[in-house]
Amino acid sequence: MTKKIGKQTFKLAYPPTIVTSAAVVGQKEGQGPLKSYFDYISSDSYFGEKSWEKAESAMLKQCFSLCCDKAKIAPSDLELIFSGDLLNQCVGSAFAMRDVGVPYFGLYGACSTMGESITLGSMAIDGGYVNRVCAVTSSHFCSSERQYRFPLEYGGQRTPTAQWTVTGAGAVILQGDGNGPFVTYLTPGKIVDAGIIDANNMGSAMAPSAYETLKAHFEDTGRGPDYYDMIVTGDLGAIGHDTVEDMFRMDGVSLGRFYTDCGVLIYDREKQDVHAGGSGCGCSASVFASFILRGIAEGKWSKVLFAPTGALMSPTSTQQGESIPSICHAVAIETTIPN
Amino acid sequence: MTKKIGKQTFKLAYPPTIVTSAAVVGQKEGQGPLKSYFDYISSDSYFGEKSWEKAESAMLKQCFSLCCDKAKIAPSDLELIFSGDLLNQCVGSAFAMRDVGVPYFGLYGACSTMGESITLGSMAIDGGYVNRVCAVTSSHFCSSERQYRFPLEYGGQRTPTAQWTVTGAGAVILQGDGNGPFVTYLTPGKIVDAGIIDANNMGSAMAPSAYETLKAHFEDTGRGPDYYDMIVTGDLGAIGHDTVEDMFRMDGVSLGRFYTDCGVLIYDREKQDVHAGGSGCGCSASVFASFILRGIAEGKWSKVLFAPTGALMSPTSTQQGESIPSICHAVAIETTIPN
Repeated sequence: MTKKIGKQTFKLAYPPTIVTSAAVVGQKEGQGPLKSYFDYISSDSYFGEKSWEKAESAMLKQCFSLCCDKAKIAPSDLELIFSGDLLNQCVGSAFAMRDVGVPYFGLYGACSTMGESITLGSMAIDGGYVNRVCAVTSSHFCSSERQYRFPLEYGGQRTPTAQWTVTGAGAVILQGDGNGPFVTYLTPGKIVDAGIIDANNMGSAMAPSAYETLKAHFEDTGRGPDYYDMIVTGDLGAIGHDTVEDMFRMDGVSLGRFYTDCGVLIYDREKQDVHAGGSGCGCSASVFASFILRGIAEGKWSKVLFAPTGALMSPTSTQQGESIPSICHAVAIETTIPN
Repeated sequence: MTKKIGKQTFKLAYPPTIVTSAAVVGQKEGQGPLKSYFDYISSDSYFGEKSWEKAESAMLKQCFSLCCDKAKIAPSDLELIFSGDLLNQCVGSAFAMRDVGVPYFGLYGACSTMGESITLGSMAIDGGYVNRVCAVTSSHFCSSERQYRFPLEYGGQRTPTAQWTVTGAGAVILQGDGNGPFVTYLTPGKIVDAGIIDANNMGSAMAPSAYETLKAHFEDTGRGPDYYDMIVTGDLGAIGHDTVEDMFRMDGVSLGRFYTDCGVLIYDREKQDVHAGGSGCGCSASVFASFILRGIAEGKWSKVLFAPTGALMSPTSTQQGESIPSICHAVAIETTIPN
């Protein structure tokens, strides 16, 4: 009865439908090329709160509530919540979800969290445990900067390889019964550590994990990159995106012109001083929950491979000279269920 | 085809077996009443490393390797790993598992992580995705103290309600085929926030979540506390343990003399200066992976309800005046599969 195909991919027997999604972002994201896709753009980076951490929680809560509203369900109609974020002890998620009254699984997958939460949520539905779950995650530029780097007031210089943490949250509701788009295949990732120690070059640190997971997905499913009309990694940004392309090219494989990255999509790098692109759990989450799912709904894409990537280091591990382990979880989203 | 019974409990159709477990602890734990149950007691709190964080990772890795050794399998024979810890960005787990080469789900459930990881691991097996997974977690007194409280060198006074973070790691391997002990029921918890703001009184903060999850488990399954020959909460310690008893007593329910707590079991509170008892992800993990599973193997108990609890706050949320949200995930372990 195993649903495993190949080494690390699962083919779902009862593919869940992504019934609704919501994306809430900050001002900078709202000035970028995807502005018309987001559900809500906040002009207040504090989201009405008194600290950046509380702001992130408020944004996540708002995104979650909006998603439930759009689905026309009460939060208590959800059966499980899968959530996580970048803050120490994942307080962004815990505080946002503490009054919801739904069984909760806290996750830490760094910026891959949207992939991890959709993966585990899909297994909970496909496995016959529940009919309806929510996967939700966030990041906030200001809470991230002060936690990982410097106080904002310090005005530290950023290196050209640095990425800009997205202020944004994304939520999706998955349901057992529905007409698609379906979550059809899951390829959870292994931790990959390529030895990169520069915490301002996350794209290079995470690219090898994206390469490994995508490669495993192609091998396990027998699909090539050309099967998909969109392959989109998490938040590798421009440098990581190109590195993944190069790694496949060395194998003689072209990822094709449909390969892109959420960290590349979310900002206009010419006009928006974000260096290598966007990052943070909220990057792939908000891009997926808006631009990608809208595109699928409008018939622009029918087969999407969504592969968010996360860097699993902490400021402490970096200070102690450790390299940056990374991970990438891939999920296939298709408008029809494959044979 | 749903396996859900009642509001938030799952009855497993193909209950996985806990085939092997391992527990590695520090010196203080090795001087406590459970000393003869642990697989390895380290006299070096650095575990051969140069920092407390690296020590925690090394301990977790050692525990994981030992568990694989005892099971006579190579780590690569595992199909999924579910792991997490208390350190910022869960680096204890990520660095311990980075070379293992097995798909990895990072979790953040604070001290409830052993319950969360067994829950999700059991669903992955019972749901037909894989046959063999590992659930593994840790905490370290020294890395926790400096992250959550004060530098050790500062020699801060501890309040009587404070608990002592266990230096310990626990790992279990779950397998689809086996002769038990079986994971039969899962009751994942909701976040509960009783408004406690004292981060030195975690037992009181977490007791309400244990109460809510246990109550839900009893209601959903129709079982009373007397069904089990051991009910063991996570690391509530003496104060939290008594609070849970009181809360049930107010409902006219006695948890009975078989109700205990991992934070109470692990130390001798008379002789070991630990105040209210043990805490940390490694507390319930190491007690479960040693004392409890050994007792089951030796026929001491045949029906155990294991319900680790976690406090989902961070030092930052506490500094910002927030109360402490908590969570408890319960899993039923039985030597025979119930009807």
